[in-house]
Amino acid sequence: MGNMTIKDIAKKCGVGVSTVSRAMNNHPDINPETKEKILQTIAESNYVPNNSARNLKRTDAKAIAVLVKGIGNTFFNDLVSGLERECQRMNYSCILQHVEEQEDELDIALHITKEKKPRGLVFLGGSFSHPREKMEQLEIPYVLSTIRAADMEEKYAAVSVDDFKESYKMTEYLINLGHERIAILTAPKEDKSIGKLRLLGYRKALQDYGIPYSEELVSYMNAEEDRYSFRSGYKLTKQLLQDTEFTALYATSDTMAIGACRALKEAGISVPAQCSVAGFDGMDTGEFYIPSITTIRQPVEKIAKATADLLFDMIKGKEKPHQLVFEGELLKRESTVPPVKRKF
Amino acid sequence: MGNMTIKDIAKKCGVGVSTVSRAMNNHPDINPETKEKILQTIAESNYVPNNSARNLKRTDAKAIAVLVKGIGNTFFNDLVSGLERECQRMNYSCILQHVEEQEDELDIALHITKEKKPRGLVFLGGSFSHPREKMEQLEIPYVLSTIRAADMEEKYAAVSVDDFKESYKMTEYLINLGHERIAILTAPKEDKSIGKLRLLGYRKALQDYGIPYSEELVSYMNAEEDRYSFRSGYKLTKQLLQDTEFTALYATSDTMAIGACRALKEAGISVPAQCSVAGFDGMDTGEFYIPSITTIRQPVEKIAKATADLLFDMIKGKEKPHQLVFEGELLKRESTVPPVKRKF
Repeated sequence: MGNMTIKDIAKKCGVGVSTVSRAMNNHPDINPETKEKILQTIAESNYVPNNSARNLKRTDAKAIAVLVKGIGNTFFNDLVSGLERECQRMNYSCILQHVEEQEDELDIALHITKEKKPRGLVFLGGSFSHPREKMEQLEIPYVLSTIRAADMEEKYAAVSVDDFKESYKMTEYLINLGHERIAILTAPKEDKSIGKLRLLGYRKALQDYGIPYSEELVSYMNAEEDRYSFRSGYKLTKQLLQDTEFTALYATSDTMAIGACRALKEAGISVPAQCSVAGFDGMDTGEFYIPSITTIRQPVEKIAKATADLLFDMIKGKEKPHQLVFEGELLKRESTVPPVKRKF
Repeated sequence: MGNMTIKDIAKKCGVGVSTVSRAMNNHPDINPETKEKILQTIAESNYVPNNSARNLKRTDAKAIAVLVKGIGNTFFNDLVSGLERECQRMNYSCILQHVEEQEDELDIALHITKEKKPRGLVFLGGSFSHPREKMEQLEIPYVLSTIRAADMEEKYAAVSVDDFKESYKMTEYLINLGHERIAILTAPKEDKSIGKLRLLGYRKALQDYGIPYSEELVSYMNAEEDRYSFRSGYKLTKQLLQDTEFTALYATSDTMAIGACRALKEAGISVPAQCSVAGFDGMDTGEFYIPSITTIRQPVEKIAKATADLLFDMIKGKEKPHQLVFEGELLKRESTVPPVKRKF
């Protein structure tokens, strides 16, 4: 039999995990007999405490830094949590650093590398279209997580879904429901990263199904504002509604989809009866939202783990930078239905 | 005239901030004439680049660690962002560390202090009812942020709203709308922190208005599950609906309020027409939700800044631990209306 876990101890003693924890931590709020029984059981078992605190035994302070661009995109929170968990497991500190929309993430990265001496970096968000010479100044391993440049060079390490393909999948799903006037909320025009890829996937699906691409259905984010946020989705949809008609709206993040629903409601348009709304990311918020939001679920846990694994392997010299692609999942929910012929 | 900022440069050149950034960072994607004009303007001005990267000049690696307990509570994300921003400003690294519900945050803190040598700690979440002797082992400055123990000792540093008072305020508001059967989603029974204070505020308001307190209207979270989360609100409300009747539901976080709305919808109960729902925290999600969620807004930015300021002042020896209380704001939104006399 392998090592016992804290859950095994709890089970054996017929108590909850938190009670075992209280016993081990000499917490006053526990029945003395229960405590004795637990400590006895632990002593007799081959239980090795392995919670994160006890794992922290090591001699030097190793850290990685996680640079997050786009603070309004709550999708990154799940990724950061996952990354931090992997860091704990590997006994690394996880230094969190936000990058403002108008800041250059590579500049920040170069300075952090110099000043804080992390062993590696993870980039979340941002367009990441930097000149190659400047990238080469970054001399420690780094992984782009859920970032993928349209023209990305092979030698960058990146972990993400195939944004082009997933976006195609969503657009195709809306087309198959019968929608032809499908508006899209997308990244700023100059974007060359996932925003561009998602827009290209949308265009290709329209093309393959013989639906003309119409620029008036495309609402580009403002480059200097917080991008994939509730507010951004709300504002872009307000603008769209002034300019054009559509039966479906594809927001390229769940946060923006929820902002969009709010703008539609304020315009007296009910979702999904009068307008379908789809998102991207697969966040909890969208699952509990009413109507629940149809979306592409990015496998956040897998992406976080693969990002960390790749980075740590690169730090150890066991891996060269390469690119990993995960499959997204189309979650068909309440916010999308076939269109009703109507006018706004 | 003081130093010019990047915005002043942008304005003077008639371009956006990102264009100035591109010029300064030798980005290829810029018109050469525009670039020259910008660089010329910068050269002639007294502009001192002061974005965060350039601020990072310093000689030793200083860090604070932020321990987050309760990963499902997206409210903490805003606080962490605020804290990280303050760290940047002070040239400190911000080490992020999550604590599982069943882990003891003080154990984790003691280990981190030893292993990662931060200059200070911030605790977010958790009940924080540790024996005094154990607290005293923590020899570096620390601040409890949005944590407040029911029996907190004066010597702990803490920054929060007055959870008792704010919760009283919300309950009073619901009572004044005409509700008497007000269910509450609250922390586990053994909680001695903000959860308990919010429950006490609820009880006191009922008492002051002569409404009997009914234990069947109180739904306690499971101590070992993720607490202030969408899912937790959803599950607790499902349970409540099996057991009792009510015309208003007060969830003690916005995340739980949204989960509750979902459970109510699945039971065929419309919000707010058939049941009012109120939250706590004042997050963006609740603002964009349909119906928008009535809540107590915690001043996140102020709390984050005050937490960081107090911690840094304690690190510098300029301040002793003390407690700061901020005022919450009752935001009356769409999710709460007077009750209709009805039966579930």
